[in-house]
Amino acid sequence: MTPKKRSEEPSVAALLTPDILDLLETEPGSVAAETEDLHPADLADVAEQIPRSQVPVLLAALPVPRAAAVLEYLDEELRTELLEQMSPEQAATLVARMMPDDRADTLEEIDEERAEEIVEALPAETRRVTQQLLLYEPETAGGLMTTEVVSVPEAFTVEETLVRVREIARSGRREAMNTVYAVDASGALKGVMSLRELLASPEGARLADVAWPEVRHVNVGADREEVARFISEYDLAAIPVVDDQQKLLGVVTFDDVIDVIQAEQTEDVQKLGGMDALEEPYMQIGFWQVIQKRAPWLMVLLVGEMFTASAMGYFEDEIASALVLATFLPLIISAGGNSGSQGTSLIIRSLALREVSVREWWRVFVRELPAGIVLGAILAVLGFFRVEGWQWMHDAQLHIGAVSFGHDYGPHSIPLALTVAVSLVGVVTFGALAGSMLPFLLRSLKLDPASASAPFVATLVDVTGLVIFFNVALFFLRGTLL
Amino acid sequence: MTPKKRSEEPSVAALLTPDILDLLETEPGSVAAETEDLHPADLADVAEQIPRSQVPVLLAALPVPRAAAVLEYLDEELRTELLEQMSPEQAATLVARMMPDDRADTLEEIDEERAEEIVEALPAETRRVTQQLLLYEPETAGGLMTTEVVSVPEAFTVEETLVRVREIARSGRREAMNTVYAVDASGALKGVMSLRELLASPEGARLADVAWPEVRHVNVGADREEVARFISEYDLAAIPVVDDQQKLLGVVTFDDVIDVIQAEQTEDVQKLGGMDALEEPYMQIGFWQVIQKRAPWLMVLLVGEMFTASAMGYFEDEIASALVLATFLPLIISAGGNSGSQGTSLIIRSLALREVSVREWWRVFVRELPAGIVLGAILAVLGFFRVEGWQWMHDAQLHIGAVSFGHDYGPHSIPLALTVAVSLVGVVTFGALAGSMLPFLLRSLKLDPASASAPFVATLVDVTGLVIFFNVALFFLRGTLL
Repeated sequence: MTPKKRSEEPSVAALLTPDILDLLETEPGSVAAETEDLHPADLADVAEQIPRSQVPVLLAALPVPRAAAVLEYLDEELRTELLEQMSPEQAATLVARMMPDDRADTLEEIDEERAEEIVEALPAETRRVTQQLLLYEPETAGGLMTTEVVSVPEAFTVEETLVRVREIARSGRREAMNTVYAVDASGALKGVMSLRELLASPEGARLADVAWPEVRHVNVGADREEVARFISEYDLAAIPVVDDQQKLLGVVTFDDVIDVIQAEQTEDVQKLGGMDALEEPYMQIGFWQVIQKRAPWLMVLLVGEMFTASAMGYFEDEIASALVLATFLPLIISAGGNSGSQGTSLIIRSLALREVSVREWWRVFVRELPAGIVLGAILAVLGFFRVEGWQWMHDAQLHIGAVSFGHDYGPHSIPLALTVAVSLVGVVTFGALAGSMLPFLLRSLKLDPASASAPFVATLVDVTGLVIFFNVALFFLRGTLL
Repeated sequence: MTPKKRSEEPSVAALLTPDILDLLETEPGSVAAETEDLHPADLADVAEQIPRSQVPVLLAALPVPRAAAVLEYLDEELRTELLEQMSPEQAATLVARMMPDDRADTLEEIDEERAEEIVEALPAETRRVTQQLLLYEPETAGGLMTTEVVSVPEAFTVEETLVRVREIARSGRREAMNTVYAVDASGALKGVMSLRELLASPEGARLADVAWPEVRHVNVGADREEVARFISEYDLAAIPVVDDQQKLLGVVTFDDVIDVIQAEQTEDVQKLGGMDALEEPYMQIGFWQVIQKRAPWLMVLLVGEMFTASAMGYFEDEIASALVLATFLPLIISAGGNSGSQGTSLIIRSLALREVSVREWWRVFVRELPAGIVLGAILAVLGFFRVEGWQWMHDAQLHIGAVSFGHDYGPHSIPLALTVAVSLVGVVTFGALAGSMLPFLLRSLKLDPASASAPFVATLVDVTGLVIFFNVALFFLRGTLL
């Protein structure tokens, strides 16, 4: 992202860490009271900055619900380490007080056997919910949702509903509380109301009459990307998750969706860079795991690029007659790769944001064709003057002291300059088309359009660009250089 | 993003459009009642799908607050067109009922003179707020915030506060209502409470005693990226915006932050693809604007790549003695570009997500150095066997029918294979280091790390890769081919 006005203030955590470390050593009993106004995210930052040996002391000094909230915000690596060091019973006490979705995610991160021991040590009802959540794929609505949701029979009045909401709020449970869902006797989702709408409604009215009957919802098996799309399209703070019988199972909240959007973005950028997406942050993932994500694509690209060696072998006679062609080759083919990389990045985002659908590929084609020609023509002018300019500098014997400028392309500099210019138009146009059409092709093959990486497009265009270049050269230089 | 389980259901809008079109022609008076349960985002989708001439009819058929909400969700292009067609007074009636932040954004999109006429036609208080909002830079907290926020004197009791909330909710104003902010007599932000916490508090308690005193907030001039970071780090549904005197001015809500995050992602991907970020969606932006965003970078990259032609001119004698070197050149230099592109995309995201800070560049350096060597070594094995394998196929006279396989690299195939292999190690390592260090360099120069595009890195590595390759060749082939 673009840094514009970056606050250079130290973070809350950086300011507090020394004080809290002091307290932990001298008066651990007072830590809870001293930090009670801090956001758990800040306490988690503090925990990440103090020596590892002090972290369990800090957690132990906090009330259990606070410690659980801090755990939710902790680095995955540190959280896993802490929970694996505790006894399963200690871990279960903490984990039981986490939000159900964070609890399930946490248990999925740690060693499987240890996770099972912790689940066994959970209170019965919490265990049941947790085991249920662990069944859902992490990348689905089920894997993202929390089961703590305020659902109320649709026959309730507004007043009865408010009493229920107050009870839940006072019980200290941490439900997603800004929205109330009305359900029928079978638990099927029938309506939705925000807390604000509830407060604005006449107290005697029945939920069935005042709640919004058209509830935006997702199936428990829906892909996380679809969940994110609903939340962002309808500006929802939470979206209810239902099973195939429309039974309300839970909600996915906006904060999880922000995390999803950022994770998908990281994946997309890494794929666009020409590698498999890492599953963990770069600085935390193991060395060999990084190699595993990078090497296969580099190998595939190298094998693809080997066709350039074969193609050039085919044109060896031309290169021998006109060595100068070889010197311009990297220039030409890289221009095609660059224009292809632009086309790809434009279309990947347009597809992700649904600005364009797969069926509309031809609308992109009719834009990219003239764009490629115009961009190629601009570069062609530069390329033409690169050859002719150097030739002119050579002919004019331009020099500063002993350093002379320019290059002698011989008596055939004009056809050479034309070869470079026309090849650039062809290669840049081909690049723009190949780069912009590839994401559509991948999507229509049910593959991820973001796999159309910049290096992949560049390799594709290198081989074709080379063939274009030598054929243009044959046209302009046959009988002279060739 | 990764499509996994994509719902193939037609959208709500697609299903309803024919019915609504029908109603508009036969019985426009019933459109409002027939569509009252629809989310305004869906109605906006409908508006985008019907003929443009029918859109004003649809808006006119809806109650003003509904029409205003539909406008908020409409395509920028269509919204601008509609508002510019209406009289300033008509437009003002609609715009006045939009959320203040959306109103300001909308007015910024349309023709400046027309926008001023609309602002003049707004009711006095709305005009004042709007003019104030228009003063803030669009990419700051002030540009994102809405001024409709529930602020209550901190001396209020919980019960008084609930009465106030109910009043506001029933007035039909569309405040960000899930959170209540406590302010002192000067309007300075003193505390925060969610509606849920308010409901859970004893009714007689004073806000000053029960609200959270440590309120996460941003300054009105803070960059939108910082606002997004707060919202996502602390899982906030809204963050209050204050001036330099801590006076509460408004809030930025999570839905605007989701839009910011997506816009920043689009920018990042386009920059990574080697172009300036577009300001509008690709399918809506003008042809020449796209050219303007793409041509300058292509030209810079072409000029950079011209150094390859100069460098190769310098090695012309070597190419003449060993033409085969030229045929392997694209293979070698592209491998460096690919490894550089991987390094860049990894570090751009790590910097954006603050997994690594600029000061920690050396931690990345000591990871990328061995990673580059290992990746280079893997490619070196492939490259070595490419040369030796083709030589072997040639020597074995392998053929299928008239098509023979392999290539004769002469008696010096082993030094050539070694040249390719060792160059690959050098070039891939250099690529990994250059690609990963460049974003740090840009950030420390106060530039956007995302400008370290894949094509830029590739160009940088092409020139260096070429020099590495010919020097390795001189080492292995001097006295034989060279």
